[in-house]
Amino acid sequence: MGSLIKVNQLRARLLQTARPAIAMAAHNPLGAKLVAEAGFDAVWVSGFELSASHAVPDASILPMSVNLEATRGMSEVQDLPLIVDLDTGFGNAVNISYAIPRFVAAGATAVVIEDKTFPKDSSLRAGGRHPLVSIEEFGGKIAAAKSSGSVLVIARTEALIAGLGQEEAIRRGCAYVEAGADAILVHSKQRTPDEILGFCRAWPGQVPLVIVPTSYPQLAFREVGELGKVGLIICGNHAIRAAVASMRHTFQRILDEGSISGVEDQIASTSDIFELQGDDFMRTIEKTYLR
Amino acid sequence: MGSLIKVNQLRARLLQTARPAIAMAAHNPLGAKLVAEAGFDAVWVSGFELSASHAVPDASILPMSVNLEATRGMSEVQDLPLIVDLDTGFGNAVNISYAIPRFVAAGATAVVIEDKTFPKDSSLRAGGRHPLVSIEEFGGKIAAAKSSGSVLVIARTEALIAGLGQEEAIRRGCAYVEAGADAILVHSKQRTPDEILGFCRAWPGQVPLVIVPTSYPQLAFREVGELGKVGLIICGNHAIRAAVASMRHTFQRILDEGSISGVEDQIASTSDIFELQGDDFMRTIEKTYLR
Amino acid sequence: MGSLIKVNQLRARLLQTARPAIAMAAHNPLGAKLVAEAGFDAVWVSGFELSASHAVPDASILPMSVNLEATRGMSEVQDLPLIVDLDTGFGNAVNISYAIPRFVAAGATAVVIEDKTFPKDSSLRAGGRHPLVSIEEFGGKIAAAKSSGSVLVIARTEALIAGLGQEEAIRRGCAYVEAGADAILVHSKQRTPDEILGFCRAWPGQVPLVIVPTSYPQLAFREVGELGKVGLIICGNHAIRAAVASMRHTFQRILDEGSISGVEDQIASTSDIFELQGDDFMRTIEKTYLR
Amino acid sequence: MGSLIKVNQLRARLLQTARPAIAMAAHNPLGAKLVAEAGFDAVWVSGFELSASHAVPDASILPMSVNLEATRGMSEVQDLPLIVDLDTGFGNAVNISYAIPRFVAAGATAVVIEDKTFPKDSSLRAGGRHPLVSIEEFGGKIAAAKSSGSVLVIARTEALIAGLGQEEAIRRGCAYVEAGADAILVHSKQRTPDEILGFCRAWPGQVPLVIVPTSYPQLAFREVGELGKVGLIICGNHAIRAAVASMRHTFQRILDEGSISGVEDQIASTSDIFELQGDDFMRTIEKTYLR
Repeated sequence: MGSLIKVNQLRARLLQTARPAIAMAAHNPLGAKLVAEAGFDAVWVSGFELSASHAVPDASILPMSVNLEATRGMSEVQDLPLIVDLDTGFGNAVNISYAIPRFVAAGATAVVIEDKTFPKDSSLRAGGRHPLVSIEEFGGKIAAAKSSGSVLVIARTEALIAGLGQEEAIRRGCAYVEAGADAILVHSKQRTPDEILGFCRAWPGQVPLVIVPTSYPQLAFREVGELGKVGLIICGNHAIRAAVASMRHTFQRILDEGSISGVEDQIASTSDIFELQGDDFMRTIEKTYLR
Repeated sequence: MGSLIKVNQLRARLLQTARPAIAMAAHNPLGAKLVAEAGFDAVWVSGFELSASHAVPDASILPMSVNLEATRGMSEVQDLPLIVDLDTGFGNAVNISYAIPRFVAAGATAVVIEDKTFPKDSSLRAGGRHPLVSIEEFGGKIAAAKSSGSVLVIARTEALIAGLGQEEAIRRGCAYVEAGADAILVHSKQRTPDEILGFCRAWPGQVPLVIVPTSYPQLAFREVGELGKVGLIICGNHAIRAAVASMRHTFQRILDEGSISGVEDQIASTSDIFELQGDDFMRTIEKTYLR
Repeated sequence: MGSLIKVNQLRARLLQTARPAIAMAAHNPLGAKLVAEAGFDAVWVSGFELSASHAVPDASILPMSVNLEATRGMSEVQDLPLIVDLDTGFGNAVNISYAIPRFVAAGATAVVIEDKTFPKDSSLRAGGRHPLVSIEEFGGKIAAAKSSGSVLVIARTEALIAGLGQEEAIRRGCAYVEAGADAILVHSKQRTPDEILGFCRAWPGQVPLVIVPTSYPQLAFREVGELGKVGLIICGNHAIRAAVASMRHTFQRILDEGSISGVEDQIASTSDIFELQGDDFMRTIEKTYLR
Repeated sequence: MGSLIKVNQLRARLLQTARPAIAMAAHNPLGAKLVAEAGFDAVWVSGFELSASHAVPDASILPMSVNLEATRGMSEVQDLPLIVDLDTGFGNAVNISYAIPRFVAAGATAVVIEDKTFPKDSSLRAGGRHPLVSIEEFGGKIAAAKSSGSVLVIARTEALIAGLGQEEAIRRGCAYVEAGADAILVHSKQRTPDEILGFCRAWPGQVPLVIVPTSYPQLAFREVGELGKVGLIICGNHAIRAAVASMRHTFQRILDEGSISGVEDQIASTSDIFELQGDDFMRTIEKTYLR
């Protein structure tokens, strides 16, 4: 499906704030396929999950090529829109102008760019480094992104993460809308949803909001819908967290039991994996073209 | 730790056939770190898992660069020996001569090369394509691999998979030892261990054997040790199978419950992930060098 | 410009056999830009030049990712159609089915696939290895390529290179047209054009021919046009050969003269390079978006 | 040859300031091989040339993976020490701590890190952006680099480029030596050598200097030796400039003449290219291992 159609569809979907779209994180194409299979509305190509899957901090350590390859691989094997985490945009407005066309060609339907300085630090990390760039500079980055390709540009403000308060967060969100942002992602690391709820209620509503409720999981999707302000909820890291828990448990059992038989019915079967690898498609090719 | 030391250590470890080394598959550096954490003896850089994580068949579809990057990433974040699945060696003896030094530089301690023709098909796939190259040709590939770098060369015969019987499998195994193989991996897709047990008992024992008991999980590690022939048991695909089962379950629960709170204590915490990302190391760098 | 439009334009251009299109080889995006600047009709993304620029033989040694990245980079910086050398298609019909969509996404307008076995050897190398696959098998590869994306498929027969004679070359060419090929590339390593001229005259003409006159440079483009059979002439390796000669000469002069001043007006100026890097575009971005 | 030996050899070579080592730029492995063939002392893995070969500005636009792959490819095909241009180090001291081990594994003998802010701009570009980081911050980056691997760390100050004058340049150079730098690269874009000569004469001489005389080519290598302060002269961009001039000329002639015969003896022969591709090595492998 063409990227422009997907951009328009996702833009329309984000306007249905009474029933926000739900995106799930993925860190490889297989995960993206599972996200689609489960029935989510979009895949979150998560910088945090990509960093974690490489066992390095989420601090601009992996080169952009990793993000690009992940985006490309995910777009090749499933059809949900990809919302791609660009962190700070890999530099300034110039870097963004060169990066966006590559991510669009790789299959991005939306990109998220945050107002931290490069190199970024993970938002949820205790004692993290979170200086922000100026509103003016970030407005230039958003405008550069908008003019660089057919893609939804979601501006992410880390004002609450940086401890600058709701007023500054609203001020930044509004300025980013002026600069062209299609939606505003507002992030909070409070353990309760109060900070985010306050922001959402105060938001004028020119464009839909996006939230990532990692640190305040008690906020149900239905409650978010009742706010009427949020177009998208991103489950930001549940794929890698699920994978880690399960690998740990499985590995330990195999060593403890001295056998792989005990875990056999706790994990996916090899035929399940073959199916996810698109075995049917390959069989068709084999029958038709292998001579 | 230097690669030559690791090669010698792994060679010595494979000789302890009364207590075979156990390797676990990984498809990304985080997985390799979990394999080390659990206490396995080695990481299996599995072509099947890499293909599966990209949601494409295990049929020489991913370029060699994917295997190289995975090997490199895994060697950067943990210290177990890496046993790297090279499938058919990405071509003939010439291709192997160019590939091996790259994999050694990327951190491989051992490589496994199989006697199928390129492009390969997955050994466990129902109705798969499994023509083998001649013994003479494969001997040349092994000799080329041995002369190309400081690495253990494990020759994998698919004679049983191809239905050629135990005699041919033994004949091939012996010829591969003559050609320089440090160990022989013998693969079977029988649902019981009988075929493998027969092979092991008939094996003259010049070099240790390697087995991958995916299809006959009932064979306990202890029983393998009692054979006195097998130096290494590879758990070939349990990481990706564990990850898939858990992602599926977690994704479904989140959508069913309309909330991420229910899965919170079923999956790894974000602080667990931070720790696996080497947060401590980054904190030390920050304190020492960030000014 | 959209890829489908380019495919149709190139198809139409190849039909003008009285004035064949001329493609020039490139081994990096800068070279492709120079090809466009000079006024050629297309860029030849040459496997030989890519291998040579990595100083390895043209024998399926570089992973497919190198070809993909080169194609992508070239499509990002200039607008000529890219005719991409896929060698043998990186495996069988299955591998082609997975490779083609990636090359189309990377910007290929046409692909060339040859009827040698994998791994290939360079056609012009003295004493090279040139076994061919069967007509039936190669027909399947062409059909698989045609059904995998919007791209011109140029089937290359190495029958003359392999010493099988004109009759077999014609037989193969015709069979490949039956299988769906949009054009037939016929290669010769004779030092005179006689072999190729014979083939061209005998060609029934269902689809246009493509030639690569490296070994018979005396054949002028105008003479080829008079044959009325050839739609495209590929200058297959002149970019890397020009670059090597000039680097060698420049390097030696600098060392001999003990100074870089002597070569200064023999080589491109740094401002020329800035211009080729798209400095104007970056200046515009800087003025508009850097704040 | 082991990397530690090369580091020590290059360190010793840089102390011979009466006869400075000469490094030549390369933008691909073939170029590096030609640099070695010509008799230079080292290869300069030039960020400018890599950017130019991709036809994008030298402004932190290419991902670090491009630099890494180039370094790796160059180390695989020739044996000169590689002096790798890391620009600003791809971020802060944290990013450097993660980058250095990768470049060492890829084959770097020395790295150059400059005191500009990320993303950088090309030093020689008219009207470029050249803000510097603080001395304290850059000292942290140098110290982080030194502690991250067995590699020479060359600190590059852009104080003269930024118009801050000789005093500040000397002050920075000295501070960087305090922080651990093995040599100081001082850059100037003046059209005469006066600025650089002034700096060199004023330099206290704790460690050798490195210069890149692109903009003042009239300064002969012998004159630099007479200063007794400079250990290394880098010819920063002459490979790409030579290649561009020659490709342009060759392309134009072919189109003008309507034939490839005229350029035939102006460019390298195909057999020259085969030789540079290591055809002899492949022939040996074929004879020994292909059966």
